[in-house]
This record gives sequence, structure tokens and C-alpha cells, in this order.
Amino acid sequence: MRKLTHEELVTRRLSPEQASSAARHPIGVLLHDIRSLYNVGSIFRTCDAFRIDHVYLTGFTPRPPRTEISKTALGAELVVPHSYHPSAAELIGSLRDKGHCIAAAEITDDSRDADSLVATDFPMVIILGNELTGVPDELLGLCHMAIEIPMYGTKHSLNVSVAAGVLLAAITARYREESA
Amino acid sequence: MRKLTHEELVTRRLSPEQASSAARHPIGVLLHDIRSLYNVGSIFRTCDAFRIDHVYLTGFTPRPPRTEISKTALGAELVVPHSYHPSAAELIGSLRDKGHCIAAAEITDDSRDADSLVATDFPMVIILGNELTGVPDELLGLCHMAIEIPMYGTKHSLNVSVAAGVLLAAITARYREESA
Repeated sequence: MRKLTHEELVTRRLSPEQASSAARHPIGVLLHDIRSLYNVGSIFRTCDAFRIDHVYLTGFTPRPPRTEISKTALGAELVVPHSYHPSAAELIGSLRDKGHCIAAAEITDDSRDADSLVATDFPMVIILGNELTGVPDELLGLCHMAIEIPMYGTKHSLNVSVAAGVLLAAITARYREESA
Repeated sequence: MRKLTHEELVTRRLSPEQASSAARHPIGVLLHDIRSLYNVGSIFRTCDAFRIDHVYLTGFTPRPPRTEISKTALGAELVVPHSYHPSAAELIGSLRDKGHCIAAAEITDDSRDADSLVATDFPMVIILGNELTGVPDELLGLCHMAIEIPMYGTKHSLNVSVAAGVLLAAITARYREESA
């Protein structure tokens, strides 16, 4: 067993040019009131990895170009389509009108596991909220569903960029299984 | 749909006292030559969430108590069993002798998806390596397998604490399915 060389890895990844024209997974990420520039950058890196369709930045979430975002995004902010929208509620209304399933990353009285997603749940936009307060109630009320990460420890949440990774890996896998 | 209250969340989580006596998933994490204190802390928080059996810190990976680790671990370093071992190779030999399956988080010519794990792959220890260089060849040679995260973008890797979250969520889910 040997690690792949840089040249072998390159053949398995998209070039920036390919990334601009390749079909993307019909999965969007909405980052609302995220505080940390490093979390935003890390989530861009993750969204590149899972070829996420679009990153929506809302509320006071910082947006590129920022040196701190680039430090953890490692250039992913240059290849992942993204846009800023001051009002998350207006954006969600528009996305709903276009037929997107809107999901909150939240622990609610009716949360489900990403493994339960089916083909008709796509295109989907998943909302990740503030590091301390999560997705606010007024946005949760606009969502079709909440998705929860099964957890078994003493804490109630994961770091938001870790949660984004766990959810996007699972949601991407489900989309690919369901659309195969 | 409403968010669970703090009181409702508490009933769904372990207390620190319960965490010290509860059965843990037979999944260990070995952090070798990790540079960032914040990554180590974040991985402790993730290991609490998935009730990981033990965190092994090797090489120059920083270890608790450190203020920067606590900042991202949020106290998880106080409930997740952990130990420091200067030599990763010696530790891996000892874990192999005790019957652990040793897996590297790496992209190799023979990597597999966490979804392919079966009951006999447990107890497992997954090795996460340095932020820039990954798991070194001399440790990869001591592993039973390599596990790779399916990625579809332009970059070759995820942030190490995000990768830990994606892998531990998937490995924990597989263990629970296989042992049900």
C-alpha cells in the first residue's frame, strides 16, 4: 500500500477550469450569521471537496475576499460559486419558489438523519447557523426539514465547520446513491 | 418544528459522570505529528460526540492541558480518555498485538470507503497525520488498511479536524449498524 503521488492525485481532481464547467451536486449551503472567518474558509474548502452547487452567505457572515478566509479555504473560495444576501428569509423564500428543499442543521423535535434523504429531497439547501446560537427560530420556521448528526457524548454540538463536513459528506453520498 | 430546549438536550447527552463509566465505541483515534492546537482541541470535541474509546497523541502532537486545546475542545479533553506516546510505531505495534485493526486516513493505491467496514474490522484505531504531509510512509506500512473520503473537487484534502469528523461519523455509524 503506498500513498498516491501528487501527479496521480491531480488526475483524480478537477482543474479550476473544469470546476467552472463541471456539473455540480444539487446541494447548496447557506451560512447564516457565522462569526469566524476561519470557519467560513474551512467550509469553502469542504464545499469544493463535495462539489457543492453554491454557497449562500447571509446576515453578518463574512465574505470573500478576506485574508483569513483564504487561509483556511486554500483557494476554494475562488472555485466554489457563492453570493451574499443580507436577508436570509428573503433568499430562502426565493429558493423555495424555485423548488429547493430547505433543511436546517439543527436538533429539533422532528429532526432526521441525513441517511434518510431520498431523491425528491433534492435540490437541497442546508442552513448552518451561528457558532453559539445555531439557526434562529424565524429561519427554522421557513425550512422543510431539520437534519441532525447522531451524537453520543456529553456535548450538544460540533464545531460548525466539522458539522458542515459531516453533513455534506452524508448528504452528497445520499444524493449520489439516490441518483445512480 | 421547534429546537429542543437546553433541558431537553441535557436528557439526551451523557453527564461527565456517565461518560466516565459508559460503554464507548471500540474506535480509537491516533493523532500523529499534528501541528495545530486548535485542530487537536476540535478533534477532542468530535471524539466526545462519537463516544470514541481513546485518543492517542504521538510524535509532536500537542497534548492537554493547553489553553488553546481547551478553547476548541470546550472541555471534551476532560472526558475523552487519552494518552501520549512518543513513538507512534511502538504504540501501533502494541495495538496490533492487542487485536486492533489499524487504519490510516490516507489516499493510497488501495484505499477504501468507510461504508465498506464490517464487524471484524473492529476494534479499530484510525490514524490522522500532519496537516501538510499526512500519515508518513513508515506508519502507513504498519496499517491494515487506508480509508479515504470520497471527494469531487479541485483540492486533495480536507482540514484535518473536518476529515476527522467525516471519518468518525461514518465509522461510528458503520460500527453501530454492524453490531446491531
